[in-house]
Amino acid sequence: MEFEESGIGEECGVFGCVAAGEWPTQLEVAQILTLGLVALQHRGQESAGIVTCNGASPPTYITHKGMGLVSTAFPPEALQKLRSGNLGICHTRYSTTGLSELQNCQPFVVDTLHGKIAVAHNGELVNAHALRKKVMRHGVGLSTTSDTELITQLLAFTPPMEELDAPDWVARIKNLMTETPTSYSLLVIFKDVIYAVRDPYGNRPLCIGRLVPISKLHKGDTEGWVVSSESCSFQSIGARYYREVLPGEIVQISKHGVKSLSVVPRPEGDPPAFCIFEYVYFARPDSIFEGQMVYTVRQRCGRQLALEAPTDADVVSTVPESATPAALGYAQQSGLPYIEVLCKNRYVGRTFIQPNTRLRQLGVAKKFGALTDNFAGKRVVLIDDSIVRGNTISPIIKLLKEAGAAEVHIRVASPPIRFPCYMGINIPTKEELIANKPEFQNIAGYIGADSVQYLSVEGLVSAVQEGIASMHKISSNNSSNRAGHCTACLTGKYPVELDW
Amino acid sequence: MEFEESGIGEECGVFGCVAAGEWPTQLEVAQILTLGLVALQHRGQESAGIVTCNGASPPTYITHKGMGLVSTAFPPEALQKLRSGNLGICHTRYSTTGLSELQNCQPFVVDTLHGKIAVAHNGELVNAHALRKKVMRHGVGLSTTSDTELITQLLAFTPPMEELDAPDWVARIKNLMTETPTSYSLLVIFKDVIYAVRDPYGNRPLCIGRLVPISKLHKGDTEGWVVSSESCSFQSIGARYYREVLPGEIVQISKHGVKSLSVVPRPEGDPPAFCIFEYVYFARPDSIFEGQMVYTVRQRCGRQLALEAPTDADVVSTVPESATPAALGYAQQSGLPYIEVLCKNRYVGRTFIQPNTRLRQLGVAKKFGALTDNFAGKRVVLIDDSIVRGNTISPIIKLLKEAGAAEVHIRVASPPIRFPCYMGINIPTKEELIANKPEFQNIAGYIGADSVQYLSVEGLVSAVQEGIASMHKISSNNSSNRAGHCTACLTGKYPVELDW
Amino acid sequence: MEFEESGIGEECGVFGCVAAGEWPTQLEVAQILTLGLVALQHRGQESAGIVTCNGASPPTYITHKGMGLVSTAFPPEALQKLRSGNLGICHTRYSTTGLSELQNCQPFVVDTLHGKIAVAHNGELVNAHALRKKVMRHGVGLSTTSDTELITQLLAFTPPMEELDAPDWVARIKNLMTETPTSYSLLVIFKDVIYAVRDPYGNRPLCIGRLVPISKLHKGDTEGWVVSSESCSFQSIGARYYREVLPGEIVQISKHGVKSLSVVPRPEGDPPAFCIFEYVYFARPDSIFEGQMVYTVRQRCGRQLALEAPTDADVVSTVPESATPAALGYAQQSGLPYIEVLCKNRYVGRTFIQPNTRLRQLGVAKKFGALTDNFAGKRVVLIDDSIVRGNTISPIIKLLKEAGAAEVHIRVASPPIRFPCYMGINIPTKEELIANKPEFQNIAGYIGADSVQYLSVEGLVSAVQEGIASMHKISSNNSSNRAGHCTACLTGKYPVELDW
Amino acid sequence: MEFEESGIGEECGVFGCVAAGEWPTQLEVAQILTLGLVALQHRGQESAGIVTCNGASPPTYITHKGMGLVSTAFPPEALQKLRSGNLGICHTRYSTTGLSELQNCQPFVVDTLHGKIAVAHNGELVNAHALRKKVMRHGVGLSTTSDTELITQLLAFTPPMEELDAPDWVARIKNLMTETPTSYSLLVIFKDVIYAVRDPYGNRPLCIGRLVPISKLHKGDTEGWVVSSESCSFQSIGARYYREVLPGEIVQISKHGVKSLSVVPRPEGDPPAFCIFEYVYFARPDSIFEGQMVYTVRQRCGRQLALEAPTDADVVSTVPESATPAALGYAQQSGLPYIEVLCKNRYVGRTFIQPNTRLRQLGVAKKFGALTDNFAGKRVVLIDDSIVRGNTISPIIKLLKEAGAAEVHIRVASPPIRFPCYMGINIPTKEELIANKPEFQNIAGYIGADSVQYLSVEGLVSAVQEGIASMHKISSNNSSNRAGHCTACLTGKYPVELDW
Repeated sequence: MEFEESGIGEECGVFGCVAAGEWPTQLEVAQILTLGLVALQHRGQESAGIVTCNGASPPTYITHKGMGLVSTAFPPEALQKLRSGNLGICHTRYSTTGLSELQNCQPFVVDTLHGKIAVAHNGELVNAHALRKKVMRHGVGLSTTSDTELITQLLAFTPPMEELDAPDWVARIKNLMTETPTSYSLLVIFKDVIYAVRDPYGNRPLCIGRLVPISKLHKGDTEGWVVSSESCSFQSIGARYYREVLPGEIVQISKHGVKSLSVVPRPEGDPPAFCIFEYVYFARPDSIFEGQMVYTVRQRCGRQLALEAPTDADVVSTVPESATPAALGYAQQSGLPYIEVLCKNRYVGRTFIQPNTRLRQLGVAKKFGALTDNFAGKRVVLIDDSIVRGNTISPIIKLLKEAGAAEVHIRVASPPIRFPCYMGINIPTKEELIANKPEFQNIAGYIGADSVQYLSVEGLVSAVQEGIASMHKISSNNSSNRAGHCTACLTGKYPVELDW
Repeated sequence: MEFEESGIGEECGVFGCVAAGEWPTQLEVAQILTLGLVALQHRGQESAGIVTCNGASPPTYITHKGMGLVSTAFPPEALQKLRSGNLGICHTRYSTTGLSELQNCQPFVVDTLHGKIAVAHNGELVNAHALRKKVMRHGVGLSTTSDTELITQLLAFTPPMEELDAPDWVARIKNLMTETPTSYSLLVIFKDVIYAVRDPYGNRPLCIGRLVPISKLHKGDTEGWVVSSESCSFQSIGARYYREVLPGEIVQISKHGVKSLSVVPRPEGDPPAFCIFEYVYFARPDSIFEGQMVYTVRQRCGRQLALEAPTDADVVSTVPESATPAALGYAQQSGLPYIEVLCKNRYVGRTFIQPNTRLRQLGVAKKFGALTDNFAGKRVVLIDDSIVRGNTISPIIKLLKEAGAAEVHIRVASPPIRFPCYMGINIPTKEELIANKPEFQNIAGYIGADSVQYLSVEGLVSAVQEGIASMHKISSNNSSNRAGHCTACLTGKYPVELDW
Repeated sequence: MEFEESGIGEECGVFGCVAAGEWPTQLEVAQILTLGLVALQHRGQESAGIVTCNGASPPTYITHKGMGLVSTAFPPEALQKLRSGNLGICHTRYSTTGLSELQNCQPFVVDTLHGKIAVAHNGELVNAHALRKKVMRHGVGLSTTSDTELITQLLAFTPPMEELDAPDWVARIKNLMTETPTSYSLLVIFKDVIYAVRDPYGNRPLCIGRLVPISKLHKGDTEGWVVSSESCSFQSIGARYYREVLPGEIVQISKHGVKSLSVVPRPEGDPPAFCIFEYVYFARPDSIFEGQMVYTVRQRCGRQLALEAPTDADVVSTVPESATPAALGYAQQSGLPYIEVLCKNRYVGRTFIQPNTRLRQLGVAKKFGALTDNFAGKRVVLIDDSIVRGNTISPIIKLLKEAGAAEVHIRVASPPIRFPCYMGINIPTKEELIANKPEFQNIAGYIGADSVQYLSVEGLVSAVQEGIASMHKISSNNSSNRAGHCTACLTGKYPVELDW
Repeated sequence: MEFEESGIGEECGVFGCVAAGEWPTQLEVAQILTLGLVALQHRGQESAGIVTCNGASPPTYITHKGMGLVSTAFPPEALQKLRSGNLGICHTRYSTTGLSELQNCQPFVVDTLHGKIAVAHNGELVNAHALRKKVMRHGVGLSTTSDTELITQLLAFTPPMEELDAPDWVARIKNLMTETPTSYSLLVIFKDVIYAVRDPYGNRPLCIGRLVPISKLHKGDTEGWVVSSESCSFQSIGARYYREVLPGEIVQISKHGVKSLSVVPRPEGDPPAFCIFEYVYFARPDSIFEGQMVYTVRQRCGRQLALEAPTDADVVSTVPESATPAALGYAQQSGLPYIEVLCKNRYVGRTFIQPNTRLRQLGVAKKFGALTDNFAGKRVVLIDDSIVRGNTISPIIKLLKEAGAAEVHIRVASPPIRFPCYMGINIPTKEELIANKPEFQNIAGYIGADSVQYLSVEGLVSAVQEGIASMHKISSNNSSNRAGHCTACLTGKYPVELDW
């Protein structure tokens, strides 16, 4: 809940689709892409873009981008325009900065010596600044502040001399991967192929699905292939989960199927660094990472929290909706009954009200109603998924106490956030993080709770890693199949050296 | 859940506010009204309107209406325009017909011989057709199909002759109440007063709240009075629940306070007829009717359902979010563990996708993700709040079975709907209701469930009425303080004779 | 030119169409109406509305209204919605007040005891205030400030008692005409008929056209009938001018043709009072009133002005575009060469620029460019159609002088406006009119001209009346065929007594 | 007139402004730019863009672009956003292709090794195709089809090696000019300077103005400098015409004033090639090119036409508004009286009407009304500025004949267009041009005129060149001060070799 309010956000979600079999396809690729975007909408609500391609020689690319939710950004005429695609990629974007202009929206399409490519990207290049200088020193002008434009220019540029007749895109992508270690999950269309790429540290998620016929008649067929930041998008389009793209892997997806082209290794000894906050907050609970359902991991965090921070209380509840799995896990482990204490008004959006004193003091009240009769006179354990700035949980506690709660104990299903992220997550400045403020010494008093306890870093890591199945079958003695997670925002230990 | 999908809907929500104390007030009446509307948004998302009034002699009324959600309908300049109000009323509206034009939106303001009045209305006049004829026979033209315009003309007209100097609005409102027995909860502004009126059968809800100072300094003060279809709106504006408007009661709300002017009785022997579906579906769970929280009633329905329809199963779950209280009640009573099986994509709105075969077959899948690991191999009891047409629950069952549920048993926390409503609820035609179709004989087979059972009418009524406290203190030997609920859509027994 | 800038404006234009022959018609009535509106757009740019009717029993009316120009107010889906009409009326509206809301837009449709009627109106009822009181005293509420709603209620109301089975609309319209003498040109649809009505003083224009087949094959046929504020609309839809509606006349237009039902006389001795400013400014130059083309009248005003106010100068020019006919007339009469001195930037609309000192001083310059080489060193006679406030012509004179004009003499092709209009024309307050200010004594000095002269009232009246042919053939010894024009804004002599 | 209808259009207009004196300036640069754009709106109505820059080190650039007219594209918040500029450039664009997306809109801003530059461009690079290949061969991806992006990349790229510390923009611009001979008028911002560049052939116009104080107090001061495609924009912002940018000249405009940096010569023997259609059609009549007012040239074309193609007729008239100067010239030379025959409905825009047979046949009628009484029974010479496809003049002739013209003789004030333009003018395909069709042999019969005659190429060239003053003072024995005009679309003789 706190994440949502705190302006923390991931930069984006990516999705792609290739129709299998003969082209022009009967599959409505543009519709699949749109539904895929809707299913990834929680990863970015600021803008959305789709590029479809007919896959011909030379290919025709059609682009539509728009501000706002997918439903706003893609009116019927936009979908009509995109209809002729046999393959395509799309992107949904989150941005908290003023740079949220249409021209920064992905995917990017650029014309190169060998024809057009389209690129969509989730992540943030740790060495973007140095790479920009390098590209510009070569005489290239950059028209946006986007890492994606930088990637397209690196792909267009590297190394162009020796391959004038036909481009070697795999070599170019590998070259890009040696220029920058992380973080990126990348989709690149060239003509009739999507290249799906995950950085060697696997910092951002990416997985592949198989579109199966809906009707029972053609049970064995494959209608197409999809690739997505999260598997939650597969169900909504009738696709089956196929596999993850491995850290460092370049996968080629075409009408002929899925083919692993290469796995670029990490530096000797470096473990993978999949962002642990994908589990804690960003991902939809029905997505699968590393063989396990996100919901299950969150529930396990709740159980672990009950072990680490038991409470003498009457009931357990949640700050809806993101903390609910952890709250149910806490209830199961602790044996306390699970109840609902807050009712969410789902229509609270941006109402254009000038805040005055009265309204500022009411704050969160317009978003939640207290289900008074459920907890009046009781001691409540309230589970939240995180506390970032501390200014959202405070009015909730006040609301519950005014409505009659005897005690309110806050249990947080993740450790305190203390450090910035340079790999694609928008985190408030160090100064704004409650865990770095003097008030944190008496956090319970500060937010008005009877007690506050957080999950430990070790507890979080073990809750995440205990469920990871042995999923990595391509090269079993490769470091890429070790489990490993980036906890930099909690510990300050970054997976690569930062050279700002 | 089925309600939401089925196009069933209540016609509207009403809200009003009067600033207490000296005018011009410091209270931002327009902001209070807007927040009140947002809190009632679940009662109507099609259009919204606010009228504010300065309460002077002659009064100035300012109106703004707009299509869509409150956040869309009220841009900053609209709120600015409305700022000068010392009192005001507002309205949010649901409409499934083509007549959803701005000119049908409430509140209505009309100029009468004695000055302007503003009217907002929730309900539907059972004898609207006859009343229209009567008004037009008098030589009045009606420019909309709205009952609210009809009410304003009846108030303007009746009986004008004998009171040329000063209007007797209470007499006029009483006269209106003798012309039409139900259903209406009505707010009328005349100059510096809001008249809050509930029909003699109390078919639609209406309650009063007291705006208290947010800061602790002025603890004893009253900053204003509000009146609302539901008490859930009070919390979001810092108001305390005061009391319900009684069936048949006319209450005057002014800066001097709240005053009961009259209680128009029902015909001898008729019980009240508060719409039972306010409890089952329409109201927000944190609202209070007849002294009890709606959430508690729904939970009690779940318990009762567990008694009436026990199941040999492993887990209990809900179709989020409306059926959750009933599911928790069922779990508590049955002793089965409560889990979550579906994850809702809250961003699914109206995407402009032409439905083709594939997408039609996928149907609900874009709205829900299955939390597979929670229920794979298990026998699931799935609680829904209603089954109206039967075409929404069917794909959910399919989704769960494909994701590995061993069995899916549907338990519905309300009885089958079989009859039309003439009192303000939009219900599909008799032919469209699944309970009136031949398929209903084998409903489980039709929707693909392993079993289906509904709550009985008696079970619903007892779950509702057992919690009703003795709330009616104005005249204790009056029939208006008996409990009584309209169950016409379930039983065909209408509270008044229908004369269409 | 000054009119345009000064905020003077007529309230509206009305237009109607009935398809001839069998219904459903092949004629695209909604398209004809839209084109008719576009041709009357100069009479009002604030909002537009169309009502079409299928003419069946009972009739179905379809309404669309929108703010702004016809092209904005009528998107394709609106036209689609209106397509089923066999007849229809429409309206375009000008408003300078804050009351420019959609609900004040015409046409109005009301349901009466005898079914629905639709009404569109150009004009302003001189006794509107008293009529509103009368209607409200009868117990009718009025929901707008519009005269048109008042007219619909008067038609619905008057006299309803004696004709319960079938309405006598002619009697009702006559009754309306006895209640209010002027000013109105009115279109009323009832079922399959349009009643076209002009007030007894003929203050506002109204004329009838015949839709002829475009293809040569059906030369004798009539495809339909149209009725319009101005005949300029006929050409754009392929209609031929048929005749004017006479002052006081009620004409019935149906698929069977045009039929004069009645001519309501003026009080004995009162001449007609057609608004003389229709000739001077409002009407499009290709429209025909009283048998003469407006352009010709304006040219005659220019000739008359040359006789009344000759100038010792080198060239004659115009403030484009409205003063051009008068300038050409002045040139012809005076023998001076006609040249162009100003080039109009037709793209100057509402640019959202905060006026600062620089821009205020530049003023009109962004609207006109000086054609310097045409007049440098020359003495220019500049013809304008009117001077209202005097603040528009002043920067034009400055512009010309700075660009090198030796002298600038202003000749105005109409007399000074000194009095308010109560019959539908929006005129600045008496205090704002330059002719009522002390500066008027030295108007040339005030606006920076070398001399200023106006056309005399007598000159204007004779320029208008000398061309009026004997058009009135229906009843030749009736006073309605005398020429007579309202010059109240110039002389203060109003055609009827004012009783505010 | 025909141009307007025929979809012929120039690609754009450019405008720039630098505040003189101390920065931050009091001058509202963003307002000046907006007004400049409005004055150039006739050169492109499809989209508009403004970039302002604070001129600091490093500079901050603020960009706003929007579709449609300036008034639509620049709402108040956009202007607010741009306010901090001390200098800026802007662009208005015309596009007939589907590529009219926001991302193709100018100005373009790119980040280079030496910081950001902003570029606006009017024209079309004759060797764009080869240049794109060259840039891409260097490894640069191009994200639009726009020549402007190509120019920015050429400027970013060329030659980057030797000047790593400080960029030599003049060398880079010169290098660009050697890469491509024509056509471009270019504005480039780098930090605190605008470089104004015109191609060596001077194909597109560009001139400089000086912003003078409006108030008389500071008469000697310069408030700023402006640069514009046309001088018509100067008047509307209070600027004085200063001089043209010469063919091949690079001018630096800064707060310190205007400085000529270089004049890049044409190949020996090549005359300048200023587009002759700027005189004939594109430019606003009050603009000045080569020392003469456009209006005067058009009038001279009309006189020449009267000499070349005299007519035995009664009156001369114009197709308003663009042909009016030529018509007045024809009337003066021929001695025939000048009258108006057509009244233009200035509100005819895009009405969303599905064309059916009736409306197609009516065609132009909705745009013009016939001023019948002015020409009934007379022989009319109608002057038009061009005939491109021949389908616009035809219905006008029909309109006049049906309204009673005895004869209609068409005289065209320019020669027939027969060839495509590769230098920035959008001309229909060769096949669509009426002059290349068999029907052209009997053009009078084809369009329904009594006779048709065109101005000769020689007549046009002499009408243009006879008024050119000796303007070129920088280097008087340089070929850049010879007069010379591109007549390629009339003669097929292109100023440079085409190498597609």
